Amino acid sequence: MGVMPQTPDSRGGILKFCNQCGSEVTLQVPEGDTLPRFVCTRCGTVHYQNPKIVAGCLPHWEGKVLLCRRAIEPRYGLWTLPAGFMENGETVQQAAARETREEALAEVAATSLYAVYSIPHISQVYMLFRAPLAAPAFGAGAESLDVALFELDRIPWDQLAFPVIKRVLEHYTTDLQRQRFEVHVGEILRPMGSAPPGRPPAST
Amino acid sequence: MGVMPQTPDSRGGILKFCNQCGSEVTLQVPEGDTLPRFVCTRCGTVHYQNPKIVAGCLPHWEGKVLLCRRAIEPRYGLWTLPAGFMENGETVQQAAARETREEALAEVAATSLYAVYSIPHISQVYMLFRAPLAAPAFGAGAESLDVALFELDRIPWDQLAFPVIKRVLEHYTTDLQRQRFEVHVGEILRPMGSAPPGRPPAST
Repeated sequence: MGVMPQTPDSRGGILKFCNQCGSEVTLQVPEGDTLPRFVCTRCGTVHYQNPKIVAGCLPHWEGKVLLCRRAIEPRYGLWTLPAGFMENGETVQQAAARETREEALAEVAATSLYAVYSIPHISQVYMLFRAPLAAPAFGAGAESLDVALFELDRIPWDQLAFPVIKRVLEHYTTDLQRQRFEVHVGEILRPMGSAPPGRPPAST
Repeated sequence: MGVMPQTPDSRGGILKFCNQCGSEVTLQVPEGDTLPRFVCTRCGTVHYQNPKIVAGCLPHWEGKVLLCRRAIEPRYGLWTLPAGFMENGETVQQAAARETREEALAEVAATSLYAVYSIPHISQVYMLFRAPLAAPAFGAGAESLDVALFELDRIPWDQLAFPVIKRVLEHYTTDLQRQRFEVHVGEILRPMGSAPPGRPPAST
């Protein structure tokens, strides 16, 4: 077609070929739609791209919170809550518990929705749950260098992997002091003129 | 390759070709992964498939709720809350307000997270917000046959489009009576041995 496809969004990813028939795609606004999509030049399939859910837990035990030190990029070596991309066929709570099992080798006894944070510039929505551990048993999963329980006044604030994790741990510290927990809904916006915090640059 | 790809999940969609290089894909568990994914036989790109967020509002005005009668399949002619797939680059609240604008030609004055419902068999997560209308002004958008404010005792319970909509309106009726609103987290499971409620069968 000679038209160089561009991504509709800096984090959506550029598609070059139709995943149904293998022909080239072009970026265009389908009839009746309002946004540009990658559309197949042969079979007409419209390839929608949508935000992803990052589900995770804020696991806690006797006033301490469980953090994982990342063994993967981005932010290798920094601390985070166990969280990752939700998979098809599961509930958000199941995804959060699964990520905790995979990254921290820990079982949670329950899950209470605690934070819903949109990160529009990378098209992710974090959904984090307060989750008492079923037992003080944990360890480093394949994506973690280390997993540990932290007293709230020992949280490594300057070594946290992502702004959303810092924000949610701040909420937790405040809410625990006043013993009143609510669901926090918020957003992390990209700092003006800067690269996405803690994420690699957009690529294909 | 001779291997007929199958979908990793009944709602994930079957991929046949790589959207980066146009070669065939096969379904396999990538190294270090635990789930089957569509992987390109030539360039090795792993094509992840993840749940979609359906964002929407429960718009209200002077004790009444705003419902839309669907002008599209599935569930043409039945009533629903304004909601639709979240787009890249927006927050969940922006998506919910946008869908209300598009489907009900209405502006909301605010949004309070009200329900998070997973529907694992179709890999969707509904995120619905209580939203006072900015004014009692509304109309039928392109995807609606009709839009109307309903007193709670006049909700057309037997003509609602989707189980999740019925569930959330039930929560709202109860919560409004006791004047105490919380965030409802739940799930809609596929009835045993039945087709997905209100959704067309999985197809490519």
